[in-house]
Amino acid sequence: MAADNRPTLGIGMVGYAFMGRAHSQAWRSAGAFFDLPARPVMAALAGRSKESVAAAAHDLGWAAAETDWRDLVARDDVQVVDICTPGDSHAEIAIAALEAGKHVICEKPLANTVAEAEAMAEAAKRAAARGVHAMVAFNYRRVPAVALARRWVAEGRLGELRHVRAQYLQDWIVDPYFPLVWRLQRDRAGSGALGDIGAHIIDTAQFVTGRRLTGVSALTETFVKHRPLAEGSAGLSAGGAARETGEVTVDDAALFIGRFEGGALGSFEATRFAAGRKNALRLEINGSAGSLAFDFEAMNELWFHDHTLPAAEAGFRRVIVTEADHPYAGAWWPPGHGLGYEHTFTHEVKDFVEAVAAGRAPSPSFADGLRVQRVLAAVEASAADGSRFTAVEDAPRAGAAVPDAVYQTPEEES
Amino acid sequence: MAADNRPTLGIGMVGYAFMGRAHSQAWRSAGAFFDLPARPVMAALAGRSKESVAAAAHDLGWAAAETDWRDLVARDDVQVVDICTPGDSHAEIAIAALEAGKHVICEKPLANTVAEAEAMAEAAKRAAARGVHAMVAFNYRRVPAVALARRWVAEGRLGELRHVRAQYLQDWIVDPYFPLVWRLQRDRAGSGALGDIGAHIIDTAQFVTGRRLTGVSALTETFVKHRPLAEGSAGLSAGGAARETGEVTVDDAALFIGRFEGGALGSFEATRFAAGRKNALRLEINGSAGSLAFDFEAMNELWFHDHTLPAAEAGFRRVIVTEADHPYAGAWWPPGHGLGYEHTFTHEVKDFVEAVAAGRAPSPSFADGLRVQRVLAAVEASAADGSRFTAVEDAPRAGAAVPDAVYQTPEEES
Amino acid sequence: MAADNRPTLGIGMVGYAFMGRAHSQAWRSAGAFFDLPARPVMAALAGRSKESVAAAAHDLGWAAAETDWRDLVARDDVQVVDICTPGDSHAEIAIAALEAGKHVICEKPLANTVAEAEAMAEAAKRAAARGVHAMVAFNYRRVPAVALARRWVAEGRLGELRHVRAQYLQDWIVDPYFPLVWRLQRDRAGSGALGDIGAHIIDTAQFVTGRRLTGVSALTETFVKHRPLAEGSAGLSAGGAARETGEVTVDDAALFIGRFEGGALGSFEATRFAAGRKNALRLEINGSAGSLAFDFEAMNELWFHDHTLPAAEAGFRRVIVTEADHPYAGAWWPPGHGLGYEHTFTHEVKDFVEAVAAGRAPSPSFADGLRVQRVLAAVEASAADGSRFTAVEDAPRAGAAVPDAVYQTPEEES
Amino acid sequence: MAADNRPTLGIGMVGYAFMGRAHSQAWRSAGAFFDLPARPVMAALAGRSKESVAAAAHDLGWAAAETDWRDLVARDDVQVVDICTPGDSHAEIAIAALEAGKHVICEKPLANTVAEAEAMAEAAKRAAARGVHAMVAFNYRRVPAVALARRWVAEGRLGELRHVRAQYLQDWIVDPYFPLVWRLQRDRAGSGALGDIGAHIIDTAQFVTGRRLTGVSALTETFVKHRPLAEGSAGLSAGGAARETGEVTVDDAALFIGRFEGGALGSFEATRFAAGRKNALRLEINGSAGSLAFDFEAMNELWFHDHTLPAAEAGFRRVIVTEADHPYAGAWWPPGHGLGYEHTFTHEVKDFVEAVAAGRAPSPSFADGLRVQRVLAAVEASAADGSRFTAVEDAPRAGAAVPDAVYQTPEEES
Repeated sequence: MAADNRPTLGIGMVGYAFMGRAHSQAWRSAGAFFDLPARPVMAALAGRSKESVAAAAHDLGWAAAETDWRDLVARDDVQVVDICTPGDSHAEIAIAALEAGKHVICEKPLANTVAEAEAMAEAAKRAAARGVHAMVAFNYRRVPAVALARRWVAEGRLGELRHVRAQYLQDWIVDPYFPLVWRLQRDRAGSGALGDIGAHIIDTAQFVTGRRLTGVSALTETFVKHRPLAEGSAGLSAGGAARETGEVTVDDAALFIGRFEGGALGSFEATRFAAGRKNALRLEINGSAGSLAFDFEAMNELWFHDHTLPAAEAGFRRVIVTEADHPYAGAWWPPGHGLGYEHTFTHEVKDFVEAVAAGRAPSPSFADGLRVQRVLAAVEASAADGSRFTAVEDAPRAGAAVPDAVYQTPEEES
Repeated sequence: MAADNRPTLGIGMVGYAFMGRAHSQAWRSAGAFFDLPARPVMAALAGRSKESVAAAAHDLGWAAAETDWRDLVARDDVQVVDICTPGDSHAEIAIAALEAGKHVICEKPLANTVAEAEAMAEAAKRAAARGVHAMVAFNYRRVPAVALARRWVAEGRLGELRHVRAQYLQDWIVDPYFPLVWRLQRDRAGSGALGDIGAHIIDTAQFVTGRRLTGVSALTETFVKHRPLAEGSAGLSAGGAARETGEVTVDDAALFIGRFEGGALGSFEATRFAAGRKNALRLEINGSAGSLAFDFEAMNELWFHDHTLPAAEAGFRRVIVTEADHPYAGAWWPPGHGLGYEHTFTHEVKDFVEAVAAGRAPSPSFADGLRVQRVLAAVEASAADGSRFTAVEDAPRAGAAVPDAVYQTPEEES
Repeated sequence: MAADNRPTLGIGMVGYAFMGRAHSQAWRSAGAFFDLPARPVMAALAGRSKESVAAAAHDLGWAAAETDWRDLVARDDVQVVDICTPGDSHAEIAIAALEAGKHVICEKPLANTVAEAEAMAEAAKRAAARGVHAMVAFNYRRVPAVALARRWVAEGRLGELRHVRAQYLQDWIVDPYFPLVWRLQRDRAGSGALGDIGAHIIDTAQFVTGRRLTGVSALTETFVKHRPLAEGSAGLSAGGAARETGEVTVDDAALFIGRFEGGALGSFEATRFAAGRKNALRLEINGSAGSLAFDFEAMNELWFHDHTLPAAEAGFRRVIVTEADHPYAGAWWPPGHGLGYEHTFTHEVKDFVEAVAAGRAPSPSFADGLRVQRVLAAVEASAADGSRFTAVEDAPRAGAAVPDAVYQTPEEES
Repeated sequence: MAADNRPTLGIGMVGYAFMGRAHSQAWRSAGAFFDLPARPVMAALAGRSKESVAAAAHDLGWAAAETDWRDLVARDDVQVVDICTPGDSHAEIAIAALEAGKHVICEKPLANTVAEAEAMAEAAKRAAARGVHAMVAFNYRRVPAVALARRWVAEGRLGELRHVRAQYLQDWIVDPYFPLVWRLQRDRAGSGALGDIGAHIIDTAQFVTGRRLTGVSALTETFVKHRPLAEGSAGLSAGGAARETGEVTVDDAALFIGRFEGGALGSFEATRFAAGRKNALRLEINGSAGSLAFDFEAMNELWFHDHTLPAAEAGFRRVIVTEADHPYAGAWWPPGHGLGYEHTFTHEVKDFVEAVAAGRAPSPSFADGLRVQRVLAAVEASAADGSRFTAVEDAPRAGAAVPDAVYQTPEEES
């Protein structure tokens, strides 16, 4: 065998549902494609049910299983705690892990409330002083096309930003007989489409533009106010007209318009009622020198309009983001051989391991996660207050100068 | 020659710029493709400059020219007055023509203020009692794909409507050195992107859904606050750094979110700063049984998702709206031989002539135009009042039942 | 009225079916949008049935009607004869008109046989010596996107051409019960998909590339060999199982591969059996410096890949061909307000009138039409001879140098 | 840990370049997503260089390394030999492995010559009698959209097939200074674009249609006949005008037209000179009842036109192939969360393991690989013989009945 003098990095993961499966694939794959400075070792998986967690650990490639996350955090062979549970447990686990000196990756949204997110950001700040790092897992930042979009915005290719148009459209609860799962209950999920998918477009938009939302005006709606109780609930069978229903206590859709620092306008929409749109995370940005457009349903493409070309030659250009010079793409396959959803997590692992091995803070930080949480809170506050324009707490002023402004209008020159 | 026993319909047009050229082509062409019940005769064109209007009449095919619109209205050979002037003259001309017993087609927006629009709607109502009719020229209703969208919504193919997503994106003033033309001055144009193109998506959305906006929350912005004075203004030459600038007094962009009667949510955006988008009038509607999507930049296509199909077979379908059974299309060319922008006006003429010949009120009426005006007013009021949700005057309640509801949620059944 | 000192140009048209309606709209419209050097006057229309031709003349805007094309050719007020009849009468009418000193526009394909086409090209050559001109109406050359494609190829933007991929896909006879119309009978139509739509892609490809096909290898097929006789034929009604059928004597589809002068390879396909493709005239060209792609079903778009850009920035770019600098487009509407099928004919009229008024030969010439005819003949000869590669008569050698070569391979430099 | 009573299946892989990396990821991942009947164990990797193969084995997750493939075949812990070497070594390794009683997966094309492929198919047949199985790795069959296409064709949704349009377009050697790598030398690679990517579209087309090509007419071309020798060759540096060049001895592009059993026509094109097309494996099939279209550059989409719908409602529908009911997709992520290139290999492993565990022959067989090889041979023979139509050896007659014909034309009914 080849010698491998790299340090190892023991990983412990909590939760093994949708996100846990995705993260496992990432931990299993990253080292085969990226030249990592440390070798991740899939040490242990935690879950409540002894039998289930053992089976999952076996299937997903974890060396051991724990039934209490505290035991996982305490393991000597675990240096990183990867939190893949629902939002209501993030704060407790993350803070405990950080205090125990373990690096943390935490799924999004960072927490279910601003207060929890603040506590987590505070804990992350304290830990960082001791060289212990935390990252919130906004995986869409690691779509190569999204990372390329950020690069091009930062390079000034779009000039001064004017419009941000972001949508996250799904359709999995269009059917009113779809049952009342926990994601549709406020006490469990915090919010509905807003926190689940709205959080993604808020983070993606702020990441790509390098600018923060300063205030918002919002509407939210619950279209189907009662739904059948989920299987196993009390009540008659699904077929019966008398099947018992319960109240949906989260939003089905959230729309808001807002302002970014630097002056751009934003239009956002998150919904689970867009029939035919499966996972349409879309972002379009218009600037004075060009525009970008992205849709996750065609995740290997970034559309770029170069407004500095003569009008007769310009148009939106479909860049297939699989070239060696594109973010992340060089590690994979030849041009035109696209990546899929799970690669966003593999890239996340790669960036995280590189940062931690170098003693750098990985990105996005818990502070970034808190910033998204504050936008979510402003959206809910506005929606509850007649859509009144509501400032995002701690955000810069809308008109604040942004460092990379590359453009001047006539009055600014005088 | 063939005998032609149809009555004639004398047309007088006021204005001969962009809209005047489009309307002329429509009057010239409609009879060759549609079997009209009356034969339009292009009797006279009115404009202020004697020389220019005579040349335009000659080029565009009008038999005579007038330099005062009042003289045109008074002509015995004119039964229809077609108003193609800017919005600030609509009310005066239209009301005078209706009172003189002439049918009227008036370009959109109906007027620059709600008060003017109310007076016009009132005049139209009085005239209708005397068999004299008025229509506002929201030409996008006559795109075959848009008319097909309305048909399918009315047939219940989308089920209960959930989302309306409407954008009208242009980019002709992205350059801050583009001069301060009259469309950028409030005293002339009324408003900016809002009234010019926002009015189109408001009308199109209300037309296709058959539902009215009940309230809105809005943001407007003027990105470039000063611009060089237009050529011919006082000041130095364009190249000089000291070229004189003036203030832009209208919005560059207007965004709003809102609610429709029947419960759907709407997201609207009108801007002249979307670099690379030339005339992107886009509409997407999501319902419980299906979705529709349209973009005028591909005007011969309507995308339809049938949500009643099995998920494994469903998807957005590109219907090329050139079949004999499609609205308007049968009169033109074989399938796949598309139409262009100007055909919307030809269809407008066809519908107008048919209605007038049959003694019916053409559609959209001045009352419809007033409804759009009231939405524009609510948008401006909301934007001026911290984006507060603002009811549209005279609109039905958001939750009001709509006649063609085809769908029931679980709680509605109980 | 405005003074108009331009000479008039009297037009006489023969035939008033599909093409006749399209040409009429063009003659009626061209002068309102283009500043023509002569004023076309729609003098007379010829057709066999007195009643029908009179009605058509009235509807389509022709001042007079004739029942014999010879009388139309003989009229003093006719300087241009526009031939919109089926191919079997082209030669006789065109040659007679040219000999009578009338300019000629003739629909495509130029003729049903090479012999006829040769006679016509010969007649056109003789007439040209007397200042009388002829044009064959390959209207797709006048799609702005197609004209732009030619411009960019001629400017060297694609470098050395490697591949031409051309398809013309329709689906109007997929149903085997579609009747045996005259277009499916060899004695009337000459050939099937090959001459009807294959001729268009051959001409378009040669036009855009500026290079001729030098040889081809072909397959043709008639999928449905018998069809019900058309209505009015002897036999029982359509519903009856015993309805009489007749033999289809033309090709349903024609495929060929070939070589162009200069060395590019070509792949061509013309079919009426491509279910779901309505009028998909598609052309893709790949060169050493870039590529172009076009599909008539989205006729206002030209897709351009600039291969000289860094790979990380390159991609097919959707140019909406409605800018003032684009061919023909400046005469119409603002950017993004697209054109339709019929505009190709209006552009044809514009180019023809400009050429004739200037004493120049319009393009494409009858010689160009003959060149297409020779390719059609080579296709049929190859298909009949085991697909053997068959040289196109009179074409240059495949390897012949082309004047605008812009590129050298390593061995050419040595 | 969970108990795992499944048998293990020891895998030995030969080669670790592009294909080896892809196969490794598949072996590593399949078990985490699919419930496999046997547990693959990545036992050993073979390669010539001791140092390199050891490093690769470590990076890619193989437990041991061998420097001679014969030693790998001989290992007791290897039950499956996975051949990822260039085509010239396939026959020797595969036959030896089968004779040693090892199951075999062999990369495509099966071999460099028909003779080798015949020997391999013969060996596979003998081995199968002993329960030892072989598969050729046409991975594009395992794109979910391609597998869905086959399902729908087999269900008769396209009716009688008329047209198959297949292209595989790449652009990685457009630059004439790209060096003379081994893939451009006949003695190493067998052929150029034809065998490398043409083989894929031949197999994919035959797989999806369930019909074989019966004969072809072909053109091949080498656009750039000399190229700089690759780095490390004798000669001066790349920058020098005098850099030594060598002859390209394979095709740069191969085009052919042909016939399928059952009567459909095919048009095929494989090229490495389509600037801007990165990995455009495209397939369109037109039948009497519908059409399908696919492009690997958007690999999660299958476009379906249902020709049995009323024309006014029909159109190509974009099915995102990520639903639970779609082939392979249910094992992965929720709808709209797409897969990438490498998943085709994971699916291949899954199907292979299932077949071998059940004692069934996996598909595609070496006989299928031989069928593709015979088409490649017919293409080369036709191209060398003036494009003469050349029958594919052992193929059925073009007009032969196919079992699942679902459609009758009028003459067939009589």
